[in-house]
Amino acid sequence: MKEFELIERLIGGLPGNTQVVVGAGDDCAVLRWPDPAREIVFKTDAVVEGVHFTSETAPERIGHKALARCLSDFAAMSATPVAAVITLATKGIDAERIERIYTGINALAKRYAVAVVGGETTSMPSGLLVNVAAIGSVESGKAILRSGAKVGDALFVTGELGGSIEGKHLDFEPRLAEAQWLAENFHLRSMIDLSDGLAGDLRQILKASSVPGAELLGSALPISRVARIRAKQGDLAKPAMAAALTDGEDFELLFSVAPSNAVKLLDAWRVQFPKTKLSCIGRLVDRPGIWLRDATGMRPVNASGFDHFSDSGQGNP
Amino acid sequence: MKEFELIERLIGGLPGNTQVVVGAGDDCAVLRWPDPAREIVFKTDAVVEGVHFTSETAPERIGHKALARCLSDFAAMSATPVAAVITLATKGIDAERIERIYTGINALAKRYAVAVVGGETTSMPSGLLVNVAAIGSVESGKAILRSGAKVGDALFVTGELGGSIEGKHLDFEPRLAEAQWLAENFHLRSMIDLSDGLAGDLRQILKASSVPGAELLGSALPISRVARIRAKQGDLAKPAMAAALTDGEDFELLFSVAPSNAVKLLDAWRVQFPKTKLSCIGRLVDRPGIWLRDATGMRPVNASGFDHFSDSGQGNP
Repeated sequence: MKEFELIERLIGGLPGNTQVVVGAGDDCAVLRWPDPAREIVFKTDAVVEGVHFTSETAPERIGHKALARCLSDFAAMSATPVAAVITLATKGIDAERIERIYTGINALAKRYAVAVVGGETTSMPSGLLVNVAAIGSVESGKAILRSGAKVGDALFVTGELGGSIEGKHLDFEPRLAEAQWLAENFHLRSMIDLSDGLAGDLRQILKASSVPGAELLGSALPISRVARIRAKQGDLAKPAMAAALTDGEDFELLFSVAPSNAVKLLDAWRVQFPKTKLSCIGRLVDRPGIWLRDATGMRPVNASGFDHFSDSGQGNP
Repeated sequence: MKEFELIERLIGGLPGNTQVVVGAGDDCAVLRWPDPAREIVFKTDAVVEGVHFTSETAPERIGHKALARCLSDFAAMSATPVAAVITLATKGIDAERIERIYTGINALAKRYAVAVVGGETTSMPSGLLVNVAAIGSVESGKAILRSGAKVGDALFVTGELGGSIEGKHLDFEPRLAEAQWLAENFHLRSMIDLSDGLAGDLRQILKASSVPGAELLGSALPISRVARIRAKQGDLAKPAMAAALTDGEDFELLFSVAPSNAVKLLDAWRVQFPKTKLSCIGRLVDRPGIWLRDATGMRPVNASGFDHFSDSGQGNP
């Protein structure tokens, strides 16, 4: 198949929506912006062969992941995605692989009414990279930032954590519906999606909000079954708790609310999303750093999880 | 320098503008959309080491080219760019190279009041790729498309063509000011920016507009001095006329207007842009294909230029 035939086939299959004025095929895409009360949300993100997927990964899953990562960032702002443009860089033109990548992108895009309004395929000496840039909208002044957290806030996380590498990192569903519902029904003070691991992403909220620290309750952490199984696989296995704290690409939502809202939120969530876990995992505190409370006391959490041998959290003045 | 220090330095240097609500550093950027009478214009584009630049190319020029290509597409729609987000994929973190790439991006962005509102740096097994996605605005219904050309239209091209590989492909200035002025003062029926060569990009206009063909006047083609010099370099050199027709990455504007506007447009251009060439290079015709008229008659133009030996254009029935 020649390149221009492939491009025509691809363009013919791209999902649209009512905001599209000019879709793929011209110099740029053009979209209507019907509601002046909403702001524009804008994001770009790439997945790379050998880093975010392998040469063996099913192309549909590559496409799904590429768009899903971007949409997960929209969820983290409680924004609604509207349209995406794709850059696909690869050696040569493997028409079947490219079409299957778009199959993955388009299926996810359709579920959330995201129009795919442009797709460039460019040559690269080796490997494969898929970049997705997306725009969306949010009610003016209502985007949930990382920077609004306060000492005392209750910390929540959706779903389960750890072991995403076994498959969830390719197949996760961005938490758009959950984020929308949360933002409409509760005053969220801060939110982020978990891409670098709970501990690392929590640190981003602390830093952006100028909050000194957080206390996590070990027994409340929603450790995934996969992380527990992996923890039993040989001497080099990561303890399940450490996996939940530091494994990347969980793509769950981490957010904080005023403590007075915590119980009400948990109750309403259980009615709204009975099949999806929501855990109150701790609170934001004045004491600097991230601390994990478990049966043995309080330990500091660092980049690789927590320190088994440190007792600096247990009774030091 | 550690990665997070680099990121903080980069974020500190990014240009903003009055539409930015949330810039780089959160999950997504947020922008105001103050004028509901304007539509959104959206584009993504990548440059790749070994394809669009070499490992020896000065990083500032890589950054300039990456953003300039994208802005050239905005010019081709007569749109105004507003904000850009960058994806930089590279092996390891060469802080100096990355900072110099951003120096090139930021300098160009500032000249056109484009805010840089997000920048991801991701790991790639080898090479370097810089993707720029940008949004902008255009008065509703006023984007200049490829699809509005009509038989009889006069064809114009800005600047000079051919030999861009000698340096212009890295340093060109996107024709945003020219496109803006053209769209404000004349009814342009179609426009495209020249990235794949005059003949190839003209074919895009013909196809999108369902116009059968075009006749180009050889003596009117604005062949660049560089293309003329290159044509004298050895036996494998490309004739200068062929270079003007087919060399890629000129990033000039090709557009069509009703023939009654042609002279008025040329006169007004010379007053407005006395230092920049504008050439009326031919017209759109009913006869299928692209034809070049020169001293020897009429020849068909194909993907590699024109056919020296064909006489199919000279008197065949």
